[in-house]
Amino acid sequence: MKINELLLNRESPRSFDSNYIISNEDILTITEAMRLSPSAYGLLSWRTLVIKRSSKFREELLPLFYNQKNVTEASAIVLIIVSEFDKLIEKDIPQYVSLMDDNTSDRVKNYEKRMLSDINYAKVDPYYVNWTSKEAFIAMGASLAVAEELGIDLCPIDGVNKKKIKEYLFENKLIEANEKFGSSVILGKRNIDVPKKKKIRLDKKEFTKIHD
Amino acid sequence: MKINELLLNRESPRSFDSNYIISNEDILTITEAMRLSPSAYGLLSWRTLVIKRSSKFREELLPLFYNQKNVTEASAIVLIIVSEFDKLIEKDIPQYVSLMDDNTSDRVKNYEKRMLSDINYAKVDPYYVNWTSKEAFIAMGASLAVAEELGIDLCPIDGVNKKKIKEYLFENKLIEANEKFGSSVILGKRNIDVPKKKKIRLDKKEFTKIHD
Repeated sequence: MKINELLLNRESPRSFDSNYIISNEDILTITEAMRLSPSAYGLLSWRTLVIKRSSKFREELLPLFYNQKNVTEASAIVLIIVSEFDKLIEKDIPQYVSLMDDNTSDRVKNYEKRMLSDINYAKVDPYYVNWTSKEAFIAMGASLAVAEELGIDLCPIDGVNKKKIKEYLFENKLIEANEKFGSSVILGKRNIDVPKKKKIRLDKKEFTKIHD
Repeated sequence: MKINELLLNRESPRSFDSNYIISNEDILTITEAMRLSPSAYGLLSWRTLVIKRSSKFREELLPLFYNQKNVTEASAIVLIIVSEFDKLIEKDIPQYVSLMDDNTSDRVKNYEKRMLSDINYAKVDPYYVNWTSKEAFIAMGASLAVAEELGIDLCPIDGVNKKKIKEYLFENKLIEANEKFGSSVILGKRNIDVPKKKKIRLDKKEFTKIHD
């Protein structure tokens, strides 16, 4: 299958070509996959900030990414910004409802009530802690093959100082108080002087068990 | 772009054709995208259990999915099973290291130490609660376009009784004690008698801000 071949061939580079400059067109094609990803109730609870190598914010962000080699070399960092539960309730749900065709119908009003009730429940359920951050990972997953299709190398970067990144983004007016940093991917061209790693995955038989 | 067109065309069906039977080949193509997805350190911390409509487990699982209409109609439920932190430490890391080429080298030994240290830190960091569940969402995201490419409809299903599903799977010896239910997708053919929903997304300009 074509897309699985892209997923098989891609890798998360440890090192990027520090001279390569990704085009905004390629960036927008990759974030488009994130935009089209599904979310619970279709709530549009994430968005992206792209920090290119030339951006004034980059140097100050790097230490919060622990100056990881590939982050410092990549052409762009895509920050996936997610809603806190308060923003889901105060902004995302009303916005979503306003975009629905029949938004004055009883059906939509009942749907809105159910969303609010479910989210208030999720707030206190330990299985749903970081729910909106989890959803950002759907977007990340959707973007993997799209980047490879463009010939762009993409590496998910999640092991960072999330609390400080959130604070930095808020202080610099890049996010609102009811948003937070979810996760990120970095983009560019891999450094061809660093050989690809062996791809290690669970054996297919171990990975999937079908109960007929 | 081809993959973005697939993402644009797909939808999460509210209703499935309750007679359609998905082939195991198609199921395995979709779970292959999940298997190939990247994870932190490449730790292979998730796997899949597929419950087809004919499986003896299906009827008992449906109430734990709140008998959602589309789940009851779908041809197969793909349960994404993720590791608890203890399994990462006790099984996933040693297994991963054993599969590496130079696994007796100092480099790998240091890498193993760093993984253990990072995971022990993540266990107590509120931003990393449900970390392994989050990673399952990368797999989910990667599978979206692959299903559409096959002409299979896929709907992520996350709003379920996760605690009870975990207990049920453990009682029925489908998972180990140090695993849990992460999330799920359902597969089949959409019910063509139910019209597609309008696709509601944030405006492109609002979704992506590039800082040059």
